[in-house]
Amino acid sequence: MTSWVEGAAGSGFDADHLPYGVFAHDEEAPRIGVRIGDFVLDLSPVAAAHMLDVHHVLEEQSLNAFLAEGPAVWASVRRWVTELVTEQAERHVVEPHLLPLSEVTLGLPIEVADYVDFYASEHHATNVGRIFRPDGDALTPNWKHLPIGYHGRSGTVVVSGTDVVRPSGQRVATKTGDPGHPRPDFGPSRRLDLEAELGYVVGVPSTLGAPAGAFREHVFGVTLLNDWSARDVQAWEYVPLGPFLGKSFATSVSPWVTPLEALAAAEVPLPGQDPEPLPYLQVADSHGYAIDVELVLNDEVVTRPPYAAMYWSPAQMLAHLTANGASLRTGDLYGSGTISGPEREQRGCFLELSWGGREPFTAGGRERTFLEDGDVVTLRASAPGTAGGRITLGEVTGRILPAP
Amino acid sequence: MTSWVEGAAGSGFDADHLPYGVFAHDEEAPRIGVRIGDFVLDLSPVAAAHMLDVHHVLEEQSLNAFLAEGPAVWASVRRWVTELVTEQAERHVVEPHLLPLSEVTLGLPIEVADYVDFYASEHHATNVGRIFRPDGDALTPNWKHLPIGYHGRSGTVVVSGTDVVRPSGQRVATKTGDPGHPRPDFGPSRRLDLEAELGYVVGVPSTLGAPAGAFREHVFGVTLLNDWSARDVQAWEYVPLGPFLGKSFATSVSPWVTPLEALAAAEVPLPGQDPEPLPYLQVADSHGYAIDVELVLNDEVVTRPPYAAMYWSPAQMLAHLTANGASLRTGDLYGSGTISGPEREQRGCFLELSWGGREPFTAGGRERTFLEDGDVVTLRASAPGTAGGRITLGEVTGRILPAP
Repeated sequence: MTSWVEGAAGSGFDADHLPYGVFAHDEEAPRIGVRIGDFVLDLSPVAAAHMLDVHHVLEEQSLNAFLAEGPAVWASVRRWVTELVTEQAERHVVEPHLLPLSEVTLGLPIEVADYVDFYASEHHATNVGRIFRPDGDALTPNWKHLPIGYHGRSGTVVVSGTDVVRPSGQRVATKTGDPGHPRPDFGPSRRLDLEAELGYVVGVPSTLGAPAGAFREHVFGVTLLNDWSARDVQAWEYVPLGPFLGKSFATSVSPWVTPLEALAAAEVPLPGQDPEPLPYLQVADSHGYAIDVELVLNDEVVTRPPYAAMYWSPAQMLAHLTANGASLRTGDLYGSGTISGPEREQRGCFLELSWGGREPFTAGGRERTFLEDGDVVTLRASAPGTAGGRITLGEVTGRILPAP
Repeated sequence: MTSWVEGAAGSGFDADHLPYGVFAHDEEAPRIGVRIGDFVLDLSPVAAAHMLDVHHVLEEQSLNAFLAEGPAVWASVRRWVTELVTEQAERHVVEPHLLPLSEVTLGLPIEVADYVDFYASEHHATNVGRIFRPDGDALTPNWKHLPIGYHGRSGTVVVSGTDVVRPSGQRVATKTGDPGHPRPDFGPSRRLDLEAELGYVVGVPSTLGAPAGAFREHVFGVTLLNDWSARDVQAWEYVPLGPFLGKSFATSVSPWVTPLEALAAAEVPLPGQDPEPLPYLQVADSHGYAIDVELVLNDEVVTRPPYAAMYWSPAQMLAHLTANGASLRTGDLYGSGTISGPEREQRGCFLELSWGGREPFTAGGRERTFLEDGDVVTLRASAPGTAGGRITLGEVTGRILPAP
């Protein structure tokens, strides 16, 4: 089913995709929109004109109220939007509310409640283990028993396009001094990195003290996510309580949230889990997604991480996150962790690609290890759509500014 | 300066304290109040009647809007409230708005933005290191160089009085099986613990990409905080990304936020820092507080952790938290980490008090290690007030319910 909107067919943003976002136009307050081709459909006036029963949740300045409504409303609004952009009879109503992307500013689509980041790629975790602990086991003993995760800083989740200031922090020179008595100094990170991830957006909250329900009852959709990381800061600080300032300076997400419904044709079985997970992790909808990611540095595709290679499913991550009775809130966001495949050109961060900085890679015609000031990092991704073609996830991009 | 309110003198909640909270009365919407003696002063009607220029921020359902106003407004509202409760001339205006504590329900005083937990007690960190790593150094190499911290789950911060359901999670039997191939099972935590802490409440936000300003420009006040912890879950999950489900099921805070101004007489020098901290951690107002905490199990004082023994100051924790450019938001909350002194009877958690469960302590006339269903844990604290007596911080209490 193809949209009548000009340019939508074959764009990755046809009627089989319809991601939601928040935009501002002409200095007016932010509003909710759906992307179709290179246009934003301004939803609230159309919903009001159609007297849609949930029009009030589409008149907010973030997606949260809509997300809180749950799967039945998500599905009915999606059917309604699909009709708007595919039926010629709706054209005269809809066309006045189609704004060219070039005329709007895209904002953060959700008010982020809690942000959790997982570590669900076996290839990534194995590589990181080999780089940091070359003499030990690559994976920690817990890795195949539970999807390891930690809480990040929700207040520094920013929308694609936001510049990222190089963070400063404590750094330890690893090749000089007495290894038993390290002498940190403080300054701009010398090992600034990105992590290519998917982010899962929670719509429906759950009750404190009980595990959440099924994946599709709570999770609305997916964004691309860049978990910027200062590796030198992280390496020194992370024992024993985990990453903190090495991560908390910025996390970028795409402005468009792709509904799970648009990814129905991208669902694939997991590569396989051994040992068998404990019963609480044997959940329904425990699939992966055939989402192909591109990691782009200054307009050059550097690697192509395959999401289908991830070990833990997003449904398992959700089950784990609430297995202790922790409640979900609307706007909770959880990242998959770096997406890396088995091959070098499938690695989702520079730490792996440059093997801890020891094996530079080539980009822009020269040798590179970590991020330099002025670098622009963009994550792009596509997946099979439900109409036979491919959908394009909203990209996430950010430029590195020098430390102040 | 003593209040005319009956019973306030000598109560720990006299005119030199005046903590803020949020209460509900007669099924009306929650409102902001100040505690004086065993009464809550209902602030919004008095502020409106007095035409206080910031009355609108006192008419909210959380303290956040008031906290965002900053130190000048905090000070002027405090002066105004002080006059209300000390000058006889105000009595006829104020008395109708004094509600007995027994007639109100106290709520969570702030909408928590990001929650961070530090690890600032050298005695606690040393004890934990000795318990978990008996053959290694007690402190990790980074411990005296930076205040170690991590992000917790802000969505499960609950107000004092909220029951805590025993969390379930993955547990590993440490004394059986092959240590190289642990076999976790899933079930209710067998090592449920508490952590006695102070929580610092941020009022004034800061800008992304730059360190925050001075401690007093951002931090409004203090709560007592219980960082409930499932030690068995935590011990298995925390390598390499830190505590997650072992902590995220609940964090309890007192309903009253004590302004920093009320703690002016409790400021004390830190015990001493060696090595000298890096320059970015040599900040103004880098003091501790002579706050004496009591850890109460089922009405029996079990230990008395002294906050004055903490290694890192709250001003240093704030400087560290934003040194990488991470921004602050109104409602950010950061915990001190478990407060423990050098003596056994000054330890702030059962992990330390029972030395990992190996050395039971006596409470309620019998041997105890970790928390049992039905246990009630209460943290109380007091500090020198500015009027020569002592102020009593709002207590934080919670009862353990069995796992479902």
